Amino acid sequence: MSTQKQARPKARLPRGFRDRGPGEIAAERRMLETIRQVYESYGFEPLETPAFEYTDALGKFLPDLDRPNEGVFSLKDDDGQWLSLRYDLTAPLARYVAEHFQSLPKPFRRYQVGQVWRNEKPGPGRYREFTQFDADTVGSASPAADAELLMMACDALEALGLKRGEYIVKMNSRRLLDAVLQSASVSDLQRGTVLRAIDKYDRLGEAGVRALLGEGRKDESGDFTKGAGLDELQIALVMELLTASADRYETIAAVQDLYAMRNILARNGYSKDRVQIDTSIIRGLEYYTGPVFEAQLTFPVANEAGETIIFGSVAGGGRYDDLVARFIGQAVPATGISIGVSRLLTAVRQRSEAALLPLVVVLSMEDAAESFAMARDLREAGLRAEAYVGTKKFGDQMKYADKRGAAIAVIEGADERAAGKVTLKDLKRGAELAKSIESREQWLGERQAQVTVERDRLVQEVKAMLTRGRW
Amino acid sequence: MSTQKQARPKARLPRGFRDRGPGEIAAERRMLETIRQVYESYGFEPLETPAFEYTDALGKFLPDLDRPNEGVFSLKDDDGQWLSLRYDLTAPLARYVAEHFQSLPKPFRRYQVGQVWRNEKPGPGRYREFTQFDADTVGSASPAADAELLMMACDALEALGLKRGEYIVKMNSRRLLDAVLQSASVSDLQRGTVLRAIDKYDRLGEAGVRALLGEGRKDESGDFTKGAGLDELQIALVMELLTASADRYETIAAVQDLYAMRNILARNGYSKDRVQIDTSIIRGLEYYTGPVFEAQLTFPVANEAGETIIFGSVAGGGRYDDLVARFIGQAVPATGISIGVSRLLTAVRQRSEAALLPLVVVLSMEDAAESFAMARDLREAGLRAEAYVGTKKFGDQMKYADKRGAAIAVIEGADERAAGKVTLKDLKRGAELAKSIESREQWLGERQAQVTVERDRLVQEVKAMLTRGRW
Repeated sequence: MSTQKQARPKARLPRGFRDRGPGEIAAERRMLETIRQVYESYGFEPLETPAFEYTDALGKFLPDLDRPNEGVFSLKDDDGQWLSLRYDLTAPLARYVAEHFQSLPKPFRRYQVGQVWRNEKPGPGRYREFTQFDADTVGSASPAADAELLMMACDALEALGLKRGEYIVKMNSRRLLDAVLQSASVSDLQRGTVLRAIDKYDRLGEAGVRALLGEGRKDESGDFTKGAGLDELQIALVMELLTASADRYETIAAVQDLYAMRNILARNGYSKDRVQIDTSIIRGLEYYTGPVFEAQLTFPVANEAGETIIFGSVAGGGRYDDLVARFIGQAVPATGISIGVSRLLTAVRQRSEAALLPLVVVLSMEDAAESFAMARDLREAGLRAEAYVGTKKFGDQMKYADKRGAAIAVIEGADERAAGKVTLKDLKRGAELAKSIESREQWLGERQAQVTVERDRLVQEVKAMLTRGRW
Repeated sequence: MSTQKQARPKARLPRGFRDRGPGEIAAERRMLETIRQVYESYGFEPLETPAFEYTDALGKFLPDLDRPNEGVFSLKDDDGQWLSLRYDLTAPLARYVAEHFQSLPKPFRRYQVGQVWRNEKPGPGRYREFTQFDADTVGSASPAADAELLMMACDALEALGLKRGEYIVKMNSRRLLDAVLQSASVSDLQRGTVLRAIDKYDRLGEAGVRALLGEGRKDESGDFTKGAGLDELQIALVMELLTASADRYETIAAVQDLYAMRNILARNGYSKDRVQIDTSIIRGLEYYTGPVFEAQLTFPVANEAGETIIFGSVAGGGRYDDLVARFIGQAVPATGISIGVSRLLTAVRQRSEAALLPLVVVLSMEDAAESFAMARDLREAGLRAEAYVGTKKFGDQMKYADKRGAAIAVIEGADERAAGKVTLKDLKRGAELAKSIESREQWLGERQAQVTVERDRLVQEVKAMLTRGRW
């Protein structure tokens, strides 16, 4: 190939992206399957939209966008139209609903699972591609629709093995925020900055948020973020929202939806131990118009650096009554919740790794066709077996079985083949024996861990060895 | 939101992309699960690479690229490096193997399923985003590795319900092609064009390929494709490859791998009714260096326009010994096969649609909390049930049940609630009765299809109605 004559490219992952191996993939598959079953049991049906949307259709609703054009991956199509990779699954849903509004059942309830991409500065544990699992109800203004999503989220988390008390779903209303901002005379121009500031309450605490509501804040790296420019009285009114009890606002009309949700939830057994009103919950996305919610894990987990942390938010969402109206000019009430699968997986995986069946590797000194036949016999007996397809060197083959973590190696040399026999080697026992004895006796130890049997009795003897080794 | 004041964006899918609904998603999920189980039974383990790779790492190996920079979606990262969306799953695998070469078991055998993107002219049934399911063995030069992939492909197709004779796996060798091109004195510069011409043999037939090997060809739309410029004798030698029997080449050293593969396959029961040598198989991708293979369906299916066609290729692959060498400078033998999931799904779906459980919709005139409780009772009894969460209008609710294709509507009006009762309506029977009778009697007919029962007996009565209606 001509490329070989050029300078060699360096094999490296793009910044902010990652490869994933068997353990994580299997765990994610089980997680998605569990959530799917819960959501389908509620009558939600799947929808898949493409990775790309037209940039204008996608809109710009990402939080933390202090610079324009940040946040999404965009490129120009060959007909001159701009395309963007989806940054969430809600904006594409709004496009889909607007496109098919007449023919959809109302309410339209769908779930969607898929990757989303954010063109952001990567950091530890912060990737530019991740998986979301969304459920949305479009065409219902009823608090019942919001309440249903929260019940589903609770059911999904419990189906994943979380116990009561290990998670909490918090809800609030953007209308309450709007009422407070109005009473504090915060202008429309300041609103976005105020919103982003409040959303950082968990991370930055009271002093950090106060700075961002006022003149601004310098972070650890020295970067300065300009604040919303509120005065002291305005800041006090906003901070009260974050620190006062929810009861403080009970009489405000804006929170009646929350109380209706709480009533429905409680009557279905989703009480304060699972769902609570919390006026400090804001959610970053700009498009929310009513109730917003967030599911948090309450137990400590280890982060990538091995430090113990409280994990926090693993799902979030809210009501976005204006998102479809962007397209069709007609208000369409809608609400949704999104599970951050990659985040949730990190937390849940630390509690349970699935046990795989032990692996049998058939090594082949002589005849590949025969190794395939042996592997097939073992598989048909319900075992996990594979044939080695590399070089004929015994050393390479044993190294392979070791790297694959195999329980048993099946070996057929020339002599054995002539005699209609095969050798089975218990690799775990072999390694143990080799460790515990002197090198002079190693050979004997290795012998103890292996047995030569009739080819016809391969399946029975492998099963017997697995039983003995308690694999 | 400020966007509402601007011109409204049009809700439309990007050119060449599509949305997918419940039926196709469920069918694809079952298909992927089936293939996965077959591949894992052979000991292949999953790997996931990100959607993006650095453009230089991905390389340019797509067929049909008469213009440079065509074929991939690319954009510049904010640090000035070019990123591209993967166009297949093989090039990212080569990057992964090169990056982790020392630590991987050899051979390294992985499967990967995921979407790939091609920046090509869309057409009917030709999308710019589609799903591939790949299996590859890296680090083995043995024909056993190629043979194993073909056994896996056969097993996967049969696990998906295809019978012997409904599919055929064809194999050839790029080395044979190279030997023929050398004997015909075809230059390196002409090679790519010749390769692409041969690859169109199925579609264009002998005359079309002859034109592309010579001066060029004008297609139906009037577009002219420049040919390879071969003379008559050269064209005759190349055409012989496409039309002569494989036996013609049996003595050529270049095809010995094919005969070794055929031997292994036959001894494992994969005979000529499933795997055949066919010297017209080329595969479009430039990076193949040895055996190439293609799985084809042999039964007729209907295309999107409703015409009956022979579906042709649903999987393809081959040996690509130079792809990892691009990075590390050291030759690493490798071979792989890729199933075109979206294509295969179209063909297989026409044969079997999965039956879903009948749906029960709980309508709510009065009390959302109570509808959720009823839906929950039904679900816990193993039924598929959902609560309606939209408006309180009865007409809207019945329209919803209808659009959802529900079997039974559970209705709780104010009177019923007071009496501790609910009404069950058999929607199929109701529709039948309404069709067969005059309007005067319609009300009576509708009455026949519904029954009012004690709330406590909801689950039993719904089950009884489903049994009566043979849902």
